[in-house]
Amino acid sequence: MRNMIASTESSSFLPQISQHSPFPPKPTQRRNTTSHSKQIKCQKMYVPGFGEASPEAKAAKHLHDFFTYVAVRIVDAQLESYNTEAHAELQEFLETHPVNDGDKFCADLMRESSRHKALALRILEVRSAYCKNDFEWDNLKRLASQMVEERNTTLMRDYLSETILPTENDSS
Amino acid sequence: MRNMIASTESSSFLPQISQHSPFPPKPTQRRNTTSHSKQIKCQKMYVPGFGEASPEAKAAKHLHDFFTYVAVRIVDAQLESYNTEAHAELQEFLETHPVNDGDKFCADLMRESSRHKALALRILEVRSAYCKNDFEWDNLKRLASQMVEERNTTLMRDYLSETILPTENDSS
Repeated sequence: MRNMIASTESSSFLPQISQHSPFPPKPTQRRNTTSHSKQIKCQKMYVPGFGEASPEAKAAKHLHDFFTYVAVRIVDAQLESYNTEAHAELQEFLETHPVNDGDKFCADLMRESSRHKALALRILEVRSAYCKNDFEWDNLKRLASQMVEERNTTLMRDYLSETILPTENDSS
Repeated sequence: MRNMIASTESSSFLPQISQHSPFPPKPTQRRNTTSHSKQIKCQKMYVPGFGEASPEAKAAKHLHDFFTYVAVRIVDAQLESYNTEAHAELQEFLETHPVNDGDKFCADLMRESSRHKALALRILEVRSAYCKNDFEWDNLKRLASQMVEERNTTLMRDYLSETILPTENDSS
């Protein structure tokens, strides 16, 4: 997608705007949307620095590792109540193997022993089910959008509360 | 939300399941969905370890910082073409201030000078617009779901390709 966006990087896309107008006029080029194969008309700001990937792909990779972490927590909590032996084995494994890289964690767990392999297979299934069924995608979007607005307001309010600069200087 | 999930943690929720059945029977308790105020019937796995927050809130915080990083890249790319002085100032500031904590970065940038403050305000507006309009939420869900399935398949295929354990041991 980055390439498709990059292909729209033209003089008309990168606008001449004043300090008073933080937002550039939106471009009207067509590009593929990576969420569907068909072409749709959309207006996007050019996002550099993601190589061959896209911001959505980068965020998806972070979420993928996050889902693995969540799946480990889910399985760990389930085992605690009905399989204390497996729970102890998973706890012991967690002490020496970080979950930062979810796939590496699962690959290592799978190769520890046949019992650990059963745990790894469950974690793989749980992260898939969690991603598909349990994770509240609409809620993620709502919370992230709300957070941006709230943090923006807080940042500006905190600044204004401590500054004595006259408004005329704000756009200098 | 975590509290609401935690309230469903009961003996009926944490099941007695066999090693051959990685997934517990789904609970049928009602809980509020945090994506809407109205109550809906849903079935969720209990996710521990998020304190007062929820997995969605945790993921939203990560996305919030990610959107700030993207907004900085967008503004930097725009400035490069039409305001080389401001671009140089932002580049210089970036050399000494990490964007890991997006809000702290913006707060520091806002207090550097009145010119830096104009950049900070633009970054705040761009991250808001990017989150609302440009970020492809459906694509994020599609890519993350696809990634989980592909990585699960790869992990199991890689393991099977190097193991000679008989199937009987898989569930031990």
